[in-house]
Amino acid sequence: MTLDEARALDRTDPLARFRDRFALPDGVIYLDGNSLGPLTHASRAAVADCTTRQWGDRLIRSWNEGWIDAPQRIGAKLAPLLGAHPHEVIAGDTTSANLFKALVAALRIDPKRRVIVSELGNFPTDLHIAEGAVACVPGAELRAVPRAQLADALGPDTAVLLLTHVHYKTAERFDMAAWTRAAHDAGALAVWDLSHSVGAVPLDLDGANADLAVGCTYKYLNGGPGAPAFLYVAERWQERLESPLSGWMGHAEPFSFTDRYQPGPGMKRWLVGTPPMLAMASLEAALDLWAEVEMATLATKSAQLFDILAAAGDALGLDCVTPRDPTLRGSHISFRHPHAYALAQALIARGVIGDFRDPDILRLGLTPLYLSHEDVWRAGEHLRGAIEAKEWQEARHQRRLAVT
Amino acid sequence: MTLDEARALDRTDPLARFRDRFALPDGVIYLDGNSLGPLTHASRAAVADCTTRQWGDRLIRSWNEGWIDAPQRIGAKLAPLLGAHPHEVIAGDTTSANLFKALVAALRIDPKRRVIVSELGNFPTDLHIAEGAVACVPGAELRAVPRAQLADALGPDTAVLLLTHVHYKTAERFDMAAWTRAAHDAGALAVWDLSHSVGAVPLDLDGANADLAVGCTYKYLNGGPGAPAFLYVAERWQERLESPLSGWMGHAEPFSFTDRYQPGPGMKRWLVGTPPMLAMASLEAALDLWAEVEMATLATKSAQLFDILAAAGDALGLDCVTPRDPTLRGSHISFRHPHAYALAQALIARGVIGDFRDPDILRLGLTPLYLSHEDVWRAGEHLRGAIEAKEWQEARHQRRLAVT
Repeated sequence: MTLDEARALDRTDPLARFRDRFALPDGVIYLDGNSLGPLTHASRAAVADCTTRQWGDRLIRSWNEGWIDAPQRIGAKLAPLLGAHPHEVIAGDTTSANLFKALVAALRIDPKRRVIVSELGNFPTDLHIAEGAVACVPGAELRAVPRAQLADALGPDTAVLLLTHVHYKTAERFDMAAWTRAAHDAGALAVWDLSHSVGAVPLDLDGANADLAVGCTYKYLNGGPGAPAFLYVAERWQERLESPLSGWMGHAEPFSFTDRYQPGPGMKRWLVGTPPMLAMASLEAALDLWAEVEMATLATKSAQLFDILAAAGDALGLDCVTPRDPTLRGSHISFRHPHAYALAQALIARGVIGDFRDPDILRLGLTPLYLSHEDVWRAGEHLRGAIEAKEWQEARHQRRLAVT
Repeated sequence: MTLDEARALDRTDPLARFRDRFALPDGVIYLDGNSLGPLTHASRAAVADCTTRQWGDRLIRSWNEGWIDAPQRIGAKLAPLLGAHPHEVIAGDTTSANLFKALVAALRIDPKRRVIVSELGNFPTDLHIAEGAVACVPGAELRAVPRAQLADALGPDTAVLLLTHVHYKTAERFDMAAWTRAAHDAGALAVWDLSHSVGAVPLDLDGANADLAVGCTYKYLNGGPGAPAFLYVAERWQERLESPLSGWMGHAEPFSFTDRYQPGPGMKRWLVGTPPMLAMASLEAALDLWAEVEMATLATKSAQLFDILAAAGDALGLDCVTPRDPTLRGSHISFRHPHAYALAQALIARGVIGDFRDPDILRLGLTPLYLSHEDVWRAGEHLRGAIEAKEWQEARHQRRLAVT
């Protein structure tokens, strides 16, 4: 692709109008929105309002003026992006904490089923939290196997199939409906981590008949650094399961201050402590933008952006580890390179911010709401320049850019 | 006390200089800082900087420019207020989640000790989370008893004595050193909830030889609505215990992305997910103010403010349920009144914001950093006016002001 061709695509890009909603710094091509999405003007204004007016002026009264319902209200705004009903999602806590709730609850359904099946090389916190969850349920164990052995690992002892829908390194995407069916066929529940999926690809949790899901809002959704995560529990499970983190906000009547825990109805029982309102305000404003986005349009542009960088990589002979078929991947592209870390640093020095993943992955996020085709074309040119000049030899070793 | 006497106290008040650091609204006497502390100008500026510069301009780079270490850095700033060493405290998650970590870890120390002893009428989330924790450890149980039976409830089966240091309703304060000793004498650990203590009374966790502690930063510390909570683990326990919430941020090397969980050194292993940076920024700025506060001076003024309202209550024949001895209480005053809820509403209508706790408690927070003696004297006058006019008869029943 030429620069003119990229510009031509930009001129008819139906998503181009979203670029002005973001407060991106000058001189940067930001290919790390899959790690930390950028600030929107809406989030900046919402945080300022939450700080100055809601907290500063309204003080404690704000709990009655929108704060206390924020986890459910924001959950309802997340629901369309997940293919869920509004009452099946809450926002709050971290992906890790929400996954712990989901796994422990699911392990307690059937005492004959005590195994969590998951994938080796899954995002680490999924496996780590699964280790913590099985330690909380007598006889439970984690069975992590290579992807090719997942189907065989499912059996009559399986309680949960825990998968990350889009892989954080390679961007490989599982077929959610098929794997949920496989879990169900084995008599197990399907628990999905959607951290690299939501806002990246169209999702249909209800359509896939998924059981539980968790995910992160600070990547493609632009919720803010460390923004509250989400938890989805299919309606049929909401009141059959109980959260191990039985905090007061999940109580049926938190303000009756009773000694005995009485889990609340629906998704309420999955709440734990007091919601972090500054972070909630940022997330909610970022989500309002998503209400205007057509996911099919997003997917089309994501594929176009991918093709630009994939072609640049091909011309350089780079090893692209991300599937070429857009239905088999998320919205980032990863190249394996022996000097991936230094190469990522060299690109940063050129104003192209991507990231590195141990041990040899250069990962570049493709976020159609604020990246133009020209941006990505220029990123490809920088990649070529950095590789041809072997700039990784000069790249200073700084501490890692991380937090995925 | 007369208005002139109150004003005279204000003229020599060494804490009066802090009032201008707060962004309190006009026309309000805020006696609810024990529920949601008010905004400081420092927090407002810190949140704006975190939003616009750190997130907006620096983007992912901010993780290497102060974000990733925030839980430990903010923990170290909390430490002096807790009587702890800087490396014994982290900020993050909610009080509920931190308590879950502490209780499950403590229950796993000795298989012969399986009981959590706590107090009936403790703040609900403490008992609710304890219910959730005992369900995660085979054979464990919660034994909640009236305060008068706590000593007898300790025995050879006790793993943990879980107490809230200052009671959320009455403000009664436990003798931390004595009760920690009682727990240790029984062979149990002492776990303290300091939500209504930190920033309210002088604390000495290390001096009391406490084991673990949790608490909230959005009350007296003014960290912000739903601000990150804290966890204290005495140095001797840090690496002998493991967190059930084994999230990736607690891993020895989070960015080596390994399949097996390897708990980090010291307090690091108690971290879970990605820290919520907007909320962290607000909290950190609020704590910087506390570095200037002498707790003994704070306690002296708290006692003076208490005496003003206690005298007002006495003159009205109100039933004060808070101890008169300042060493036996926190920093709020509670009156029992049959129309407490409507009375709280009547006071709010007069611009005096306190709160109500089921079923019959009017609770008024005494926060020396931003309340003058005159403020509290005027609150006493409003209390007299509302009671004498029986304004609770008119007070409209709105939804409860809550979230303690």
